Amino acid sequence: MYNKNISTFIACDSTFEDADIVVFGAPFDSTTSFRPGTRFASKVMRVESEGIETYSPYQDRDIEDLSVFDGGDLELPFGNVVVALEEIENYTKSVLEAGKKPFMIGGEHLVTYGTMKAVSSHYDDVCVLHFDAHADLREDYLDQKLSHATVIRRVSEMVSPQNIYQLGIRSGTKEEFDFGRNNTNFCPLNFDRLDEFVEKLKGKKVYLTIDLDVLDPSIFAGTGTPEAGGATFNELLNAILKLKDLNIIGLDINELSPSYDQSGVSTAVACKLLRELLLIVSK
Amino acid sequence: MYNKNISTFIACDSTFEDADIVVFGAPFDSTTSFRPGTRFASKVMRVESEGIETYSPYQDRDIEDLSVFDGGDLELPFGNVVVALEEIENYTKSVLEAGKKPFMIGGEHLVTYGTMKAVSSHYDDVCVLHFDAHADLREDYLDQKLSHATVIRRVSEMVSPQNIYQLGIRSGTKEEFDFGRNNTNFCPLNFDRLDEFVEKLKGKKVYLTIDLDVLDPSIFAGTGTPEAGGATFNELLNAILKLKDLNIIGLDINELSPSYDQSGVSTAVACKLLRELLLIVSK
Amino acid sequence: MYNKNISTFIACDSTFEDADIVVFGAPFDSTTSFRPGTRFASKVMRVESEGIETYSPYQDRDIEDLSVFDGGDLELPFGNVVVALEEIENYTKSVLEAGKKPFMIGGEHLVTYGTMKAVSSHYDDVCVLHFDAHADLREDYLDQKLSHATVIRRVSEMVSPQNIYQLGIRSGTKEEFDFGRNNTNFCPLNFDRLDEFVEKLKGKKVYLTIDLDVLDPSIFAGTGTPEAGGATFNELLNAILKLKDLNIIGLDINELSPSYDQSGVSTAVACKLLRELLLIVSK
Amino acid sequence: MYNKNISTFIACDSTFEDADIVVFGAPFDSTTSFRPGTRFASKVMRVESEGIETYSPYQDRDIEDLSVFDGGDLELPFGNVVVALEEIENYTKSVLEAGKKPFMIGGEHLVTYGTMKAVSSHYDDVCVLHFDAHADLREDYLDQKLSHATVIRRVSEMVSPQNIYQLGIRSGTKEEFDFGRNNTNFCPLNFDRLDEFVEKLKGKKVYLTIDLDVLDPSIFAGTGTPEAGGATFNELLNAILKLKDLNIIGLDINELSPSYDQSGVSTAVACKLLRELLLIVSK
Amino acid sequence: MYNKNISTFIACDSTFEDADIVVFGAPFDSTTSFRPGTRFASKVMRVESEGIETYSPYQDRDIEDLSVFDGGDLELPFGNVVVALEEIENYTKSVLEAGKKPFMIGGEHLVTYGTMKAVSSHYDDVCVLHFDAHADLREDYLDQKLSHATVIRRVSEMVSPQNIYQLGIRSGTKEEFDFGRNNTNFCPLNFDRLDEFVEKLKGKKVYLTIDLDVLDPSIFAGTGTPEAGGATFNELLNAILKLKDLNIIGLDINELSPSYDQSGVSTAVACKLLRELLLIVSK
Amino acid sequence: MYNKNISTFIACDSTFEDADIVVFGAPFDSTTSFRPGTRFASKVMRVESEGIETYSPYQDRDIEDLSVFDGGDLELPFGNVVVALEEIENYTKSVLEAGKKPFMIGGEHLVTYGTMKAVSSHYDDVCVLHFDAHADLREDYLDQKLSHATVIRRVSEMVSPQNIYQLGIRSGTKEEFDFGRNNTNFCPLNFDRLDEFVEKLKGKKVYLTIDLDVLDPSIFAGTGTPEAGGATFNELLNAILKLKDLNIIGLDINELSPSYDQSGVSTAVACKLLRELLLIVSK
Repeated sequence: MYNKNISTFIACDSTFEDADIVVFGAPFDSTTSFRPGTRFASKVMRVESEGIETYSPYQDRDIEDLSVFDGGDLELPFGNVVVALEEIENYTKSVLEAGKKPFMIGGEHLVTYGTMKAVSSHYDDVCVLHFDAHADLREDYLDQKLSHATVIRRVSEMVSPQNIYQLGIRSGTKEEFDFGRNNTNFCPLNFDRLDEFVEKLKGKKVYLTIDLDVLDPSIFAGTGTPEAGGATFNELLNAILKLKDLNIIGLDINELSPSYDQSGVSTAVACKLLRELLLIVSK
Repeated sequence: MYNKNISTFIACDSTFEDADIVVFGAPFDSTTSFRPGTRFASKVMRVESEGIETYSPYQDRDIEDLSVFDGGDLELPFGNVVVALEEIENYTKSVLEAGKKPFMIGGEHLVTYGTMKAVSSHYDDVCVLHFDAHADLREDYLDQKLSHATVIRRVSEMVSPQNIYQLGIRSGTKEEFDFGRNNTNFCPLNFDRLDEFVEKLKGKKVYLTIDLDVLDPSIFAGTGTPEAGGATFNELLNAILKLKDLNIIGLDINELSPSYDQSGVSTAVACKLLRELLLIVSK
Repeated sequence: MYNKNISTFIACDSTFEDADIVVFGAPFDSTTSFRPGTRFASKVMRVESEGIETYSPYQDRDIEDLSVFDGGDLELPFGNVVVALEEIENYTKSVLEAGKKPFMIGGEHLVTYGTMKAVSSHYDDVCVLHFDAHADLREDYLDQKLSHATVIRRVSEMVSPQNIYQLGIRSGTKEEFDFGRNNTNFCPLNFDRLDEFVEKLKGKKVYLTIDLDVLDPSIFAGTGTPEAGGATFNELLNAILKLKDLNIIGLDINELSPSYDQSGVSTAVACKLLRELLLIVSK
Repeated sequence: MYNKNISTFIACDSTFEDADIVVFGAPFDSTTSFRPGTRFASKVMRVESEGIETYSPYQDRDIEDLSVFDGGDLELPFGNVVVALEEIENYTKSVLEAGKKPFMIGGEHLVTYGTMKAVSSHYDDVCVLHFDAHADLREDYLDQKLSHATVIRRVSEMVSPQNIYQLGIRSGTKEEFDFGRNNTNFCPLNFDRLDEFVEKLKGKKVYLTIDLDVLDPSIFAGTGTPEAGGATFNELLNAILKLKDLNIIGLDINELSPSYDQSGVSTAVACKLLRELLLIVSK
Repeated sequence: MYNKNISTFIACDSTFEDADIVVFGAPFDSTTSFRPGTRFASKVMRVESEGIETYSPYQDRDIEDLSVFDGGDLELPFGNVVVALEEIENYTKSVLEAGKKPFMIGGEHLVTYGTMKAVSSHYDDVCVLHFDAHADLREDYLDQKLSHATVIRRVSEMVSPQNIYQLGIRSGTKEEFDFGRNNTNFCPLNFDRLDEFVEKLKGKKVYLTIDLDVLDPSIFAGTGTPEAGGATFNELLNAILKLKDLNIIGLDINELSPSYDQSGVSTAVACKLLRELLLIVSK
Repeated sequence: MYNKNISTFIACDSTFEDADIVVFGAPFDSTTSFRPGTRFASKVMRVESEGIETYSPYQDRDIEDLSVFDGGDLELPFGNVVVALEEIENYTKSVLEAGKKPFMIGGEHLVTYGTMKAVSSHYDDVCVLHFDAHADLREDYLDQKLSHATVIRRVSEMVSPQNIYQLGIRSGTKEEFDFGRNNTNFCPLNFDRLDEFVEKLKGKKVYLTIDLDVLDPSIFAGTGTPEAGGATFNELLNAILKLKDLNIIGLDINELSPSYDQSGVSTAVACKLLRELLLIVSK
């Protein structure tokens, strides 16, 4: 009765020691060029996750049977990109060294730079599976090397472009699309090559990064740069279910900006995907 | 010029005596566990229904040619579940005894308990056709027997589970899904078994209850517990159009919570479905 | 550094003299019967268009390579329909006489009356390709001949009904649907006859008018009369891409009402369609 | 149990014949230059008026003891100013001829033109008491004589400027302020001369018109042109209470635009003022 | 680094054992008659309280120097008033028996029934100091004895009406105002008698209950029944500062309904008052 | 007719060469710790400024009689504080060197660092008059020296603390309040010392910086960190009117975050203050 008030994503109530998966928030959006707000994603998701069930009828499993620790949010300095990314890298490293899987909730997509620094130094030969509306392949953006619009280009420098698998991309400059077509495994506009990609990724160490704006804004309006023409919820869900035999060694979801969708639907969508992803990576 | 100001759903301007169908509101949401607000559904729908046409291009018929009475909203005591459900039961009974079809606008889904008490006592061998995102099959919820989350379980005790037909269910506990799979006619996640169900229901007395959250939140954000992965509007509309040869002896739509969708789209959706349903059940 | 602050749709920065296409806003909504607000569409689109890319991955072309002049918004008197429509007509005429294509951003759909007065007087044998949720074929509306609900009927009097091609219509009175079925090229509910229509329109002078509420309100909630059951974004986009070999001599998009969609998605959708349409009509 | 659903402002349930006061809505906003929406005021107020008490602790009286008829909303053609104003004039005339007081709920302020046409023809020597943020004294506006921005100028032509008493005006052109200072009884910025005005008006026939934007937007955000620096609620309430000995022969409140204030506070404020005004004019 | 994620009101991070004050949430709103939503108050306040400073310039003290335990939210069954109130009573009792002060965050005002059951049984001769827009003195409401509209009447039966001190009341039925004027210490409409009340309460055991709608809706729109004409923030703050020499043995604030004020101002106001109240009762 | 579309604050349509005052936007909010969004302030103000009059009844003057150039918005790199502040400094310097007064629209308050770098290098002995809810006197914030929470401390290092005059401060740490009380001219909580400050500042070169959150959130909800207990609009307006005899050599207003106030009131307030300030500094 007199314990402190613990706030976690629903059913993520393991201790760190017992956990197989460590969920943590990275509330950072300082390089967001259009509409900021992703910094609130993890906090709002913890409160709203009470609205979903712990049981998945899609996988016929329950996240109450998993061991997941919710480490809360990192404290990141706004306006200092370098320090913020180091904090993310260090936390991720400590999770990996403890033999657990990191599951980060962004924040803007740049936060993936931090986890991938740790992941690509901890593991050899990591592949990156990337769902997004935007290519994020710019060489620089507004003169900055570290930006939400450059993050996958930077990641490609860590693991080499041929280990990057991109799906659903429907916005970018001509240069980004040319870079993708010529260098990464690039499936723009839809998920048509997903089966092929999954086949290639089998047996490899995979880091999964999902920019939730890969979803159509009809179901996910709560994001900084809504881009029409994306996946329905069921399309993304089915794509995720196809990943169940991959060796996912870390992952993140990012770019939920809760206040742009006052109906709460976008946050509920993110919470439901969190549940399905926990089940997918937990075996 | 000096008549009182009558407020009805558009074109529902028959007298009680002349009416074939009696529409009424049941503004009750006291057991809503997550986000209340469905109590405002019927009032807001009356105002907003002016924005739709009375003619359906889908059925090539016009609700102005029907005889529908709008009885306004019942006055229900908040916080007293038992009394509120009795009021609904009594009103429904009087409609049935006058030889008319009741069409209730909820409110939370628990209000169906009230109509079904009257319907199952007035008619023998009633079947229930249930569209919903949630199974509503809990034995109890937060220690309560009467709740939006238990209502179909309670109804199954009135008409027996094998007379319950459920479609579109995509959220619930493992126990609810197990109960559904083992006891009711259970079509989770989609409407794939609708033709089969319609075939079985032909010639029977059918009560139709539609929790509008069976729709995907992309088109129906205005509800307490948005659950992604639901039906498009056209999928639900086409399902409804398939019911035209059934003997529907009463019906309800519920769980519109207008203020969660400030664009007004959810309310417009509910009004359009009201029109189509009036035409379907009016022959 | 000391130039005045120019505000245009993104990349529409040509001079009038150099331009092939002239974009202009027609902020008028005085006959809107249900929920006004389209008068703000063009201004908000200019600000928000910064959020989209200038490159289209669908057409592999960039609007930065086009010559488009943004003429700003016309100054239209609220409440004076006749004068407002004359202003639109005069401006359109001057654009046509300069040998350029007019691209108007409404405003309520009645503004198309103004452009079509100029277009049908400047060109012989104009056909009108019309995407819309509503037929807009009323003979009069609330006793008015000039209204958003009558505009295509009025246009049909300029070019004759058999030169009108209508797609996606899913709302109207029985009289409007009967008029459409009997007089215009009428494809209600969907775009199934688009290929046929495009075939017929080849080689003809085509004016394109898109009421954006032809989109489903799931992706386009920001409009005065949301009507469920419409096209997805990709369906409308694909329809537009099929028009690339037509001789489109003028066009408009209309009925965005930004404030009804506080997520900003509807405005972003309109901006993205503006980009794709500029590329389609610019050859 | 089987009566039709009557929708009235709370407690305004008298018949026309028994009523002393006739409340009616004038849903018109076609000349609104900035942000329309006042057309919804009366409908929303009827629904929301359930949230207030019928008893006034300020006057220690209850509107349930009055005889007020709610005549519903006039049906006014959007975009046709002349016809709309005639409808208002005719309805007002019929109320006056029946020996009752008209109480109109706007709509934009131009609707007062309609009531004052009837009032100034029915009575001699009418004075107009005008609370507003805006002078509404333009000679014309966007070339129109009949506009929300010209309405008091037009009214001054019916009753002569020296019978106009204006309070709280804090926005307008220099020409309007000069006209006010030189011609009407003009108290800009505050209510400092109210006692003086009340003294002058005693024994005269007074028409009261309150543009609710005379209130500060902190308490009344739901209006088309919010203008900071206005009255607090208590300041306006106290001003109204001072009118209790005047012979008010008709009145209106206008310019509530409910959807601009999603908290519902502005509508609640309008309902509370409606209650207090009914009590003031009912003796 | 690997502790669980603790969520508390800012700086309320003491253990239960060390604490002088125990803050807890009572998320209950089942009897709310108009617009529910207060159940979310405590959760949202914990997240948003990060936006305020811990230092009060008004009292020149810092809540970081206090010992406050945040016990999280009680789990209360929706729709079962009796059980919910017993849970509140039991928790309050345990806090009192541990020699600490309970500070409850509602919820609708009925939750005060639960704390006062415990307080009035633990202490003799308790006085209740009540700030509110509404009298809450009904004998029953919609046939219920236990309701937000009856709660102070029920409390008056526990401690006798002459021990109730009410300020700011500006809404109710004539019966409630008569009961107040004749039985309680009743200061309607304003705080004019606060000094007198404080003088009388000195040396007595005082329970303080603040319905935040005593504030004017200009500064506190986020509540179910906004009632214009209330206190400014500084007026309520100054009233609170005057209580610093009273022996307050328990307290609550209630009726924040965060989602009705999307600007977040109402929640920020509640958090700031929480800080000031913690300092006032902590000596 | 064929000029490009110029977007300026209303009536700020002078050329740079002819202008006495240069208005420009600084859309930067990267160090905002709580709720970002001020980057949109200047763009939204330009669109919404059409809703105000150019004539001030408070000063009986019209901004159409002034010569003001609107230079549009600076292009500032998000996430790079140093570069962004240099851009602001350089632009300000060029305005000063041309003999004109800079009037910046923020952005977060840190942008004042940029203008003050230019101002304090261009002029000797500058005093800073600072209206704000927050002291902004931290030595550092989240380990950063350059932050919205440290900006006045940094400015005090340019001009020395005794040349800083602060009013309305009602939030900060104990350290900030101690620094203010001991070093600057510090008037916390209200404007009581304004007359004294104005007297001291007469004849001096004054830079005026107004954080608009000095206003109470009842009238100015559209800001990142709403802090109750602030000035009414009239209190701030009257304070501004008292500055008319000062020698204001540059100024800024900042911290409007338009999307947090969907009623548009906060933006309208900022536009009205812009008008009054232009008139005050234009003699």
